[in-house]
Amino acid sequence: MERLYLEDLAPGQVYRSGRRVVTAAEITAFAAAYDPQPFHLDAEAARDTLFGGLAASGWHTAALTMRLQVEGEFRLAGGLIGAGMDELRWPRPVRPGDELRTETEILEVRPSRSRPEQGLVKARTTTFNQKNEPVQVLVANLLVPRHPAEEPPSGLSACRS
Amino acid sequence: MERLYLEDLAPGQVYRSGRRVVTAAEITAFAAAYDPQPFHLDAEAARDTLFGGLAASGWHTAALTMRLQVEGEFRLAGGLIGAGMDELRWPRPVRPGDELRTETEILEVRPSRSRPEQGLVKARTTTFNQKNEPVQVLVANLLVPRHPAEEPPSGLSACRS
Repeated sequence: MERLYLEDLAPGQVYRSGRRVVTAAEITAFAAAYDPQPFHLDAEAARDTLFGGLAASGWHTAALTMRLQVEGEFRLAGGLIGAGMDELRWPRPVRPGDELRTETEILEVRPSRSRPEQGLVKARTTTFNQKNEPVQVLVANLLVPRHPAEEPPSGLSACRS
Repeated sequence: MERLYLEDLAPGQVYRSGRRVVTAAEITAFAAAYDPQPFHLDAEAARDTLFGGLAASGWHTAALTMRLQVEGEFRLAGGLIGAGMDELRWPRPVRPGDELRTETEILEVRPSRSRPEQGLVKARTTTFNQKNEPVQVLVANLLVPRHPAEEPPSGLSACRS
C-alpha cells in the first residue's frame, strides 16, 4: 500500500480501517495492567457503577483505535505521529463483543514554516461500534513529511554546487 | 485511603502519584498489541526515524499515566471517569528505563446543573520522567459525585414525605 505524503492529503478526505471485535478477556486484561477500576475489571462489580456493566477503559478504546488506524487506509509516510490532541471524548462505553472500526476525516493541511520538509495535518478520527454509534472522537495534529523532491542527476548537482 | 468527593476539591490543589520504571520489553509489548510502528517496536529500526531511538507509544504513556493515577493520591469517589479531554500532548518521548510519576492540578470545580448528585472537575495531569521533564500533559474533565447528604432519621423522613 502506498504511503501518504502531505501533498496527498486534503480537507474532506475520509480514510477507513478494518474491524476488530473486543472481548471481555481483553477488556479486563488491559484494565488489570493500566486502569484497575471495578467497572473495567469485573462484570459483577461493574453493575452498580455509572457504567451499569463491564466497559473498556477509555485508554483501551484509544489504544485499539490506534491499532485499527496503523493497519487501515490512513498510512502516512513516516508513520502516524501525533504532535498533540485537541479533543478526546468517549461518548459511550465499549462493551464486550463490540466490533470497532474507525473513520478519519482530514480537517486541515498546513505546511510547516520552520521545517520545510514536513507539515501539520489536523484530522478527526471517530471510532464506531457495530451499531454505527461513536464510541470515541479524537482530533489529532499529526506530523506528515512532504514528498521528497526529485533528486537531480549527479552531474547536474555537481554543476550547481 | 479516603475517597475524594466534589466538596473536597478546589482549584490549585495538587495530587501526586508513585513512580514506575518503564522497560524496553514493556514498550515493545504494548506497541506490538496496539501501535505496531518501527519506532515503538525495535531499537535498531527506530534509530533512523524522527524519534532517533526506541520510544514508547503515546498511548502507552497515557495508559501508564492512568495506572499511576488510579494508585496515587487522586482517588475520587466513584472512580476516575473522564467525560472528555480538552488537551493531550506528548512534549517528549518516553524511553526505556525512564521512571514516570504524575502531578494532577485541579483547575475548575463545577456542580452539575442537570444532575445535582455530581459535578464536573477540570484537572491537568502532567507526567514527568526522572529528570522532571514533562512527557505528557493531559487536561481532563472528570465526573465527580457530591458527598451524599446525611440521611435523616427514618421517622423524620416519613413525616416529610
